[in-house]
Amino acid sequence: MPEYKAPLRDMRFLLHEVFDIADHYRRTGYPEVGAEDVDAVLSEGAKFCEEVIAPLNASGDAEGCHWEGGKVTTPKGYREAYAAYREAQWGSISSDPEYGGQGLPQSLELFFNEMAVTASTSFRLASGLSMGAVHVLEQHGTDAQKRTYLPKLISSEWTGTMCLTEPHAGSDVGILTTSATPDGDDAYRIQGTKIFITYGEHDLADNIVHLVLARLPDAARGAKGISLFLVPKFLPGPDGSPGEPNGVHCASIEHKLGIHGSPTCVLNFDNAKGFLVGPPHGGLRCMFTMMNYARIDVGMHGLGQAERAFQGSVAYARERLQFRAPDGPVLPDKRADPIIVHPDVRRMLLTQKAVSEGCRALSYLAAMQLDVEHRHEDADARQAGGELLAFLIPITKGMLTEAGFEAANSGIQVFGGYGYIRETGMDQYMRDCRITSIYEGTNAIQANDLLGRKVLGSDGALLRRFGALIDELCDATQGNSQVAPLSKQLRAVNADWQALALRIGGRVADSKAELGAAAFDFLMYSGYTALGYLWLRMGHVAATRLAEGAADRAFYEAKIKTARFYFARLLPRTAAHSAAIDSGADNLLALAESDFIL
Amino acid sequence: MPEYKAPLRDMRFLLHEVFDIADHYRRTGYPEVGAEDVDAVLSEGAKFCEEVIAPLNASGDAEGCHWEGGKVTTPKGYREAYAAYREAQWGSISSDPEYGGQGLPQSLELFFNEMAVTASTSFRLASGLSMGAVHVLEQHGTDAQKRTYLPKLISSEWTGTMCLTEPHAGSDVGILTTSATPDGDDAYRIQGTKIFITYGEHDLADNIVHLVLARLPDAARGAKGISLFLVPKFLPGPDGSPGEPNGVHCASIEHKLGIHGSPTCVLNFDNAKGFLVGPPHGGLRCMFTMMNYARIDVGMHGLGQAERAFQGSVAYARERLQFRAPDGPVLPDKRADPIIVHPDVRRMLLTQKAVSEGCRALSYLAAMQLDVEHRHEDADARQAGGELLAFLIPITKGMLTEAGFEAANSGIQVFGGYGYIRETGMDQYMRDCRITSIYEGTNAIQANDLLGRKVLGSDGALLRRFGALIDELCDATQGNSQVAPLSKQLRAVNADWQALALRIGGRVADSKAELGAAAFDFLMYSGYTALGYLWLRMGHVAATRLAEGAADRAFYEAKIKTARFYFARLLPRTAAHSAAIDSGADNLLALAESDFIL
Repeated sequence: MPEYKAPLRDMRFLLHEVFDIADHYRRTGYPEVGAEDVDAVLSEGAKFCEEVIAPLNASGDAEGCHWEGGKVTTPKGYREAYAAYREAQWGSISSDPEYGGQGLPQSLELFFNEMAVTASTSFRLASGLSMGAVHVLEQHGTDAQKRTYLPKLISSEWTGTMCLTEPHAGSDVGILTTSATPDGDDAYRIQGTKIFITYGEHDLADNIVHLVLARLPDAARGAKGISLFLVPKFLPGPDGSPGEPNGVHCASIEHKLGIHGSPTCVLNFDNAKGFLVGPPHGGLRCMFTMMNYARIDVGMHGLGQAERAFQGSVAYARERLQFRAPDGPVLPDKRADPIIVHPDVRRMLLTQKAVSEGCRALSYLAAMQLDVEHRHEDADARQAGGELLAFLIPITKGMLTEAGFEAANSGIQVFGGYGYIRETGMDQYMRDCRITSIYEGTNAIQANDLLGRKVLGSDGALLRRFGALIDELCDATQGNSQVAPLSKQLRAVNADWQALALRIGGRVADSKAELGAAAFDFLMYSGYTALGYLWLRMGHVAATRLAEGAADRAFYEAKIKTARFYFARLLPRTAAHSAAIDSGADNLLALAESDFIL
Repeated sequence: MPEYKAPLRDMRFLLHEVFDIADHYRRTGYPEVGAEDVDAVLSEGAKFCEEVIAPLNASGDAEGCHWEGGKVTTPKGYREAYAAYREAQWGSISSDPEYGGQGLPQSLELFFNEMAVTASTSFRLASGLSMGAVHVLEQHGTDAQKRTYLPKLISSEWTGTMCLTEPHAGSDVGILTTSATPDGDDAYRIQGTKIFITYGEHDLADNIVHLVLARLPDAARGAKGISLFLVPKFLPGPDGSPGEPNGVHCASIEHKLGIHGSPTCVLNFDNAKGFLVGPPHGGLRCMFTMMNYARIDVGMHGLGQAERAFQGSVAYARERLQFRAPDGPVLPDKRADPIIVHPDVRRMLLTQKAVSEGCRALSYLAAMQLDVEHRHEDADARQAGGELLAFLIPITKGMLTEAGFEAANSGIQVFGGYGYIRETGMDQYMRDCRITSIYEGTNAIQANDLLGRKVLGSDGALLRRFGALIDELCDATQGNSQVAPLSKQLRAVNADWQALALRIGGRVADSKAELGAAAFDFLMYSGYTALGYLWLRMGHVAATRLAEGAADRAFYEAKIKTARFYFARLLPRTAAHSAAIDSGADNLLALAESDFIL
């Protein structure tokens, strides 16, 4: 079974050498968080994720969760690991110190999160959802709600959920029908069924705080008639401890393709007592408070499986002996050479490497904009950071989960027949990854968000601004002989990207269907271009370090070589996506609904 | 749970309208097999596959196989269905009448096979492997072996296996170590362990005939020292019925990602009695007798999952209501419109449709070359058919499994969160499909076979010949206004393909590593081009039928629209593959083995 080793060298390269995280924290209101502090969190976090969380990944997958009479039992070892997580206070990194949080940057929490979710996505989801609840309550809770719930959530004594989906209302949350009826004393009675609720019921914590979308009696139809309610599993007593059980019942858990250690629950709210969070009918906006953070988080679920598959594949490719190297034996005393000598195996390994490291860089860039948007010293910078964040979110979520899936799936192929066998663990990475293109907004939703709201909705301004960042980078790198050809290639891709968006805009003006027809391929085009930006940036930094005579030459040379691989073999995929986009909506709309199968 | 409906209309379109199968059979020694006979086999076969096999697909997946003390129990219902299969003689279609076969064309058997493997790959594997054994024995068995084993295999009383893989020898079969020691009377003693043996042990038939690759004492190292042995589970007695147990023991079965209903066995051969098939040290060549047929068969496993996912996705997309159509409600009385109205959902459905129907056409074209190679009245035609077959085999196996996987995987996405839930059955298609890129020669093996043996090994002759077929088709279709733009596009892609191969050839002359560096992307490029050829051919036939005033206009119009979709949105992927190929091997070889993870 491949072990997880947190990629600390790569993380430090990004944070210190590419992004200058200490300077970033100085400007975003965290002057006390220096490079050493970041390293300390990463090192301690890595140790915890490697030693406590990672060992549960395979066993949790094999065992799964159990439901009986409304109670859910998580896999063996989860309770102890969760207790250790609570004890070490890994759930409080970025939370408000007034309620027990450590008051550190959200980005730092996400850097830790990458390791946690990679060590075991299923285990991480128990606490990951709590953070969303904390963010929502920090921003929209009443003082009393904050006092009652935040300390328990931040300390990980209790966990949180997000209850959006109903059997008939998935992506289209606007048609949900769960109802909330006023019941005096600021309380409401919640009635309805929610499905696909991650850790909606479990045995890890004393209480569960459900954040539930529902409709008030006077609500308008659609998304504008949705309000947000806090519905605790146990109603807190006067001393704040879990008291009377509330009317929330876990009717079953799903049998899923993957993330078996994470219970996915059907929750029946039967006259459950709930408390309004934020303004009436303002529920979606409140819930969306945590969406940017949550979408980076889910992107990291995808990245994490790519990273696991990469680590497992490289280890196997170094050990497994099959055939001889193209230019003759490298291990003449053995009956065959390790498969890492074969160009096609290297193609898969390098794809995994380029995806994992490139996606990590993209997710860190996005995570840092959370700090900039909320805390930068300069108002214009806050505005710009927020806009960059808005633009990067769908790309990050979409690309980390799509490319992450490809990389995770390649792990099976590198292992050959053994990859199809459960014991090697490779199939789990692919299965656990597969949900990431679906939850927290399917990638079609991300694609529409990117093209519709972010690009066309800003009349192209957000795209042009990111394009200007790319051009700046191309200007800065065109004289660096190590990466100059990449710089030139990226400048051309960027120009094509901008022109492509203009062409789409023209077509969408004629017909709204053109938006949905272009959106997914535009998301992928954007994802490859964004990774190109980050690979050029990383390659440039690496080349600069080498020119400065830095030690650790192999690391920097590997970065440059991987950048070249990315530009040679993955970035050209943009051509296929732009051709598909330019073909327009007609080829999608021509077929009558009834004629798909005749 | 989506039901399987055999795509008879599409199959008949291909066989009668595109390929003129009756004329083909007239020229390949089957003048008695007319169009109605083909239809009768298809109709009866469809009924059997839909009613007897398909109902076992989901239940077999959920239950899996059980191993205890060397015995394997297949899922509930398998025994009865296998008995019905045997009773109806579905396993004897193309076999030699001298031994009880029906003497019909191999292609016809494969058309039936497509339905069987789509209805349930796991169930189909029980009998699918027997056919390989029959082909090997028909060609290479002694008269006594034929008399003893063929009637039982052909009647499906017994089943067959192929025992190649050993723990250390997967793709690299040449390093296998199982030994065969002469034991008088034409018998040998077989010693060794084989893994990943499909239906190596089971409870469906009275006996199992293992075809085992092993080394004689005086064998050379490598692939040239491998011989083929027939090793029955029970040694046939004087009356031919299963007698004394042989030294073959099923040590365990694998826990796999998919095809749970098919037992994948570890077989220990412990002094087992075996009989040489074919010449000493000629085992690989004998085994490869059935490889072309088997690779079309496995391609159809991939196609089958694409077809199942397509059928399930279309049904769901017509029912599931989410959001409104881009240009306003189409079901104003409902709270939302069916998701088939959304361009992005149509993109996925049309990809599934274009892949399923295009891959079906490709596999039929390949299957028909089996008849041509073996039985055409004209010697030159036999030679040409054999060469076309040799060229199409790796493309068919590679493309049906790679594109098939994409299409099967899209089924999960169309279903959204429900796609990740086992009960909807969509994940099974993806899981069952995933093995097809691995077994019967991984797709890297196919890629090397295509580029190395077939293209470069013929100095480009086989590629040029298929290219000439494409140009002929482009000549014939350029005047058909319905498909003329596609004709023009395909001519250009074909020219690029030919030029690409020349460039690769030049580089391979300098360095052998260039072959492996280009092979997989060349396979994909070839796959998309071959599907382009078949989509143009199908579109042209459909347009011709429409011009002739045929009934069933919706069917033909759907063909043309799907062809246009394919050319607009899938064929342009060749650009990404050719860019990757032209980047050469350097970007794959630059990184030292030790530097993949630092």
